[in-house]
Amino acid sequence: MTTIIRVNMTSLEINREPVPRNMEKLGGRALIGEILNQEVNASCHPLGKNNRLIFAPGLLGGTAVPCSGRISIGAKSPLTRGFKEANSGGTLGHKLGRLGIKAIIIEGRPAKGHHYVLRLTKNGTALDEAGDLGQLGNYDVTKRLFDQYGNNIATASIGPAGEMLLCASTVAISDQEGRPSRHAARGGLGAVMGSKGIKAVVADDKGCGVVKPKNPQAFKAVLKEFSNYLKVDPQIRSRSRHGTAEGIWHAVDAGWLPTRNFSSGHFEEVKKIDADAIEKLTKERSGYMTACMPGCVIKCTHVLNDRDKNYLTSSLEYETLAMLGSNLGIGNLDTICLLDRMCDDIGIDTIETGGTLGILTETDFFQFGDGEKALDLLNEIRNGTTLGRVLGQGVEVTGRVFGIDRIPAIKGQGMPAYDPRALKTMGITLSTSALGADHTAGWMVKGETYEEQINHSMERQIAFALMDTLGMCLFTRIMLFDNLDYMTGFVNGVHGWDLIEADLLELGKDILKKERRFNENAGIGFHANQIPDFFRNEACPPTGNIFDVPEEMLWRSS
Amino acid sequence: MTTIIRVNMTSLEINREPVPRNMEKLGGRALIGEILNQEVNASCHPLGKNNRLIFAPGLLGGTAVPCSGRISIGAKSPLTRGFKEANSGGTLGHKLGRLGIKAIIIEGRPAKGHHYVLRLTKNGTALDEAGDLGQLGNYDVTKRLFDQYGNNIATASIGPAGEMLLCASTVAISDQEGRPSRHAARGGLGAVMGSKGIKAVVADDKGCGVVKPKNPQAFKAVLKEFSNYLKVDPQIRSRSRHGTAEGIWHAVDAGWLPTRNFSSGHFEEVKKIDADAIEKLTKERSGYMTACMPGCVIKCTHVLNDRDKNYLTSSLEYETLAMLGSNLGIGNLDTICLLDRMCDDIGIDTIETGGTLGILTETDFFQFGDGEKALDLLNEIRNGTTLGRVLGQGVEVTGRVFGIDRIPAIKGQGMPAYDPRALKTMGITLSTSALGADHTAGWMVKGETYEEQINHSMERQIAFALMDTLGMCLFTRIMLFDNLDYMTGFVNGVHGWDLIEADLLELGKDILKKERRFNENAGIGFHANQIPDFFRNEACPPTGNIFDVPEEMLWRSS
Repeated sequence: MTTIIRVNMTSLEINREPVPRNMEKLGGRALIGEILNQEVNASCHPLGKNNRLIFAPGLLGGTAVPCSGRISIGAKSPLTRGFKEANSGGTLGHKLGRLGIKAIIIEGRPAKGHHYVLRLTKNGTALDEAGDLGQLGNYDVTKRLFDQYGNNIATASIGPAGEMLLCASTVAISDQEGRPSRHAARGGLGAVMGSKGIKAVVADDKGCGVVKPKNPQAFKAVLKEFSNYLKVDPQIRSRSRHGTAEGIWHAVDAGWLPTRNFSSGHFEEVKKIDADAIEKLTKERSGYMTACMPGCVIKCTHVLNDRDKNYLTSSLEYETLAMLGSNLGIGNLDTICLLDRMCDDIGIDTIETGGTLGILTETDFFQFGDGEKALDLLNEIRNGTTLGRVLGQGVEVTGRVFGIDRIPAIKGQGMPAYDPRALKTMGITLSTSALGADHTAGWMVKGETYEEQINHSMERQIAFALMDTLGMCLFTRIMLFDNLDYMTGFVNGVHGWDLIEADLLELGKDILKKERRFNENAGIGFHANQIPDFFRNEACPPTGNIFDVPEEMLWRSS
Repeated sequence: MTTIIRVNMTSLEINREPVPRNMEKLGGRALIGEILNQEVNASCHPLGKNNRLIFAPGLLGGTAVPCSGRISIGAKSPLTRGFKEANSGGTLGHKLGRLGIKAIIIEGRPAKGHHYVLRLTKNGTALDEAGDLGQLGNYDVTKRLFDQYGNNIATASIGPAGEMLLCASTVAISDQEGRPSRHAARGGLGAVMGSKGIKAVVADDKGCGVVKPKNPQAFKAVLKEFSNYLKVDPQIRSRSRHGTAEGIWHAVDAGWLPTRNFSSGHFEEVKKIDADAIEKLTKERSGYMTACMPGCVIKCTHVLNDRDKNYLTSSLEYETLAMLGSNLGIGNLDTICLLDRMCDDIGIDTIETGGTLGILTETDFFQFGDGEKALDLLNEIRNGTTLGRVLGQGVEVTGRVFGIDRIPAIKGQGMPAYDPRALKTMGITLSTSALGADHTAGWMVKGETYEEQINHSMERQIAFALMDTLGMCLFTRIMLFDNLDYMTGFVNGVHGWDLIEADLLELGKDILKKERRFNENAGIGFHANQIPDFFRNEACPPTGNIFDVPEEMLWRSS
């Protein structure tokens, strides 16, 4: 990966730049941290011309490593007002890798009302007028882009939410079947893309082969071992059958399933929305399991059809099932599928939206279990009504507007589907990550004492940051949960480097440090490592736990 | 002042507590800083049961010192999410001082739908059911309270905005004529009062005399000199005639009058809204000048009548004229009077509201100069429509909801009526104060170099914090703009202390330090000392200036 593409949306100029020396060994999330700290004044308005939107494949993007094609997207977040990297599966990461693109940096802002498609091919990069794509949902946009640019493309697009600059908006990434079912969902990056006047990014890697390893021998050895592992690991096998929906079982067992606006950890209708229920529905309607990116052998995605056996939605993750299901008191899988499809189409984060509708039950606008009303409210967002615009800002702003003080959000970002009272270790990661409440910042359960839990959270945050830097899917597990031999093996094999584990650990620490530094420069101090006070004051049934990790320990851990 | 009244709104219990040793020499703002840091976890939700609302008269409250009866109100701010003290004239500060009340601390939260009047007399303190006062505007509430409790009372009340927990809501304080024209306006303290279920505080000091000085000789000597000064100082004389409306002249001369959403420092219709215009309107309609508190010889307040010569509004300050006038392109004094009256009645901050309607011109909801529409929009707030609730959250949330990135706010609080590009020294105070953009944190114009300007701002912030601790009106000037002899003279005379200037300076620094510490504990780091980036990027006509004080200097100055 030899090139940085810089797109100035004020002048509409595109430049290809060589990769600076200090960025050579960075990719994905690490590269975004470096660029944001170097180029973006942390005090800028996140939707103003001085913010940058960055796309960066991981260090293994475009290679033959299985599950290595995740795309990192980053900017100053309009939701958290701090550092944000969100990554996604789908096919974009690999295609950018194969095109030799290390990063796309989008800066400036076009005149109002102008929207573009940024098109990348082997032969060059161009901005096409987006024409009549404006206000279309992601499904229509993606279909039109595939019709127009051919089937070899990958897309990143925003729905009406991103165009309306709503802070819960996502960037949708096309999957292997050309559907916008994958999302860099958290932190409102769709709004940053909207502010830059980019409706979609289209990448076509025609004529580009797979990235060839610089040290083929070493690479092949690791690849073989890794591929074998992926095929036999029992937990991966389980994921291949159940998808992330299996998380519902773990959540119910341990009492951390967000239910009715985080008022309980158990949902009495849970069997209607768990992995068995999804498997049944999938089969009944001729759905199937699939992989979001080429070369993935895990295939964790349910493709779900409607009653007429036409495609309805896919990538219905645990987070979505919990936040749009149990957290809203909705035990109807059909409704959850529709809500998921609408969120993907409008381009809004299912986690943030589930949290938002959850607190809205404290008003007259919504009641637990009312699926029809939930769909109506998503339409309010789609249509940009004032109420819709409020909801599209996510949990915290919705809470402020309606005078609600029980707000499940950290650093401005709605909490994912792990009640931290029953899963305290996760609460530590959620409160201490510079990214705001984000389960992919370092999922973990271990640790007896607070001290152990905090140390373990920091270790996990480092390992996860490295995975996001390599572009690796977290579900490959062994890279994360064992030593770092696979990481060093692949990175050295691909790039011909000679990194050792200590180098990667150093890099991981540096990634977190840079993210915290950006937050600090944005005015977000380390005391923002907090958990909403109701988690400390209200016991959560059925475990009866409260979150009791001392505040001081959360502060210290940055 | 010997007693702290603690009101627990969960249990509805009231306790009288002795003043702890470390609070004896504190009053007003300093006392609030001490109590908030001691008692309130900075990470709490500002509208939850763990926040405290504090009323504290100054160290000179209830004495015969002219202009010493300001009341400080404080809490964790729902607007800035950090430390907030806002103070107000009117008659409450003196009455609390005469009742011997050092502070009222309101904690906890009652069951939903319950609202109370907190009544304080020489004989005791009680919570009366607020009955049918709910949802009434401040003018009706205050009238009913005076009807019910007699003419010797002072009131603090909230309008519908405070009850609806809107973050731009104020606490209204009754003036000498029993009207709610005075407001502790900034930072959303009305919402904190609303969250505590307190519709009004009523203080009757019947049977209490003026606070007697412990050292009468010394006190009388200072009092005589001070009173003579107030009578002859030419600038005070000017204030007595023109009110703060004279600020319009200074602003126009120097090009810092916020005009059309901070797009210019000059308003071509300025002569329709300046001090001459107000003087003319006041006279035509049989209005007059008056003082907000007993013992004030400045009398800076215009009482403005409607066409039928019935009372319309008073305390139409420079800030209101600019933010609801020039900043909205409204050159009609009648309209501004109506807007001011409505803000006072609904209980919302005229500064925050003017800034909010200013940015709303970037949407289809409002256009510059449309006074009728501005009044309609205030009615939306009064009626609690979704749009009204958004606007009632102030500049920053309104900007987020409507995707506006040119936001005149610092630390979440809307900017007052001094364009920092033409008055950079003020920009320093606005960006560095822990209170958010607040002109009363340290109004100043001096300094040639950045270094001088920053040092001068820090000196001013210390002096202003001391004035807020004594309960003194800033318009007495000499206390601020000369040495601190008057402050030490009065404080020592009243309390029999022997403080020297250095003690007060130490106290002043400590006040600011505690406020910053609270912010830091709330997660607001010193890098939040920022100015919105458009002030750095857009030149302001007519001066053509940008705000160019280096960011690093703003950070350093905390």
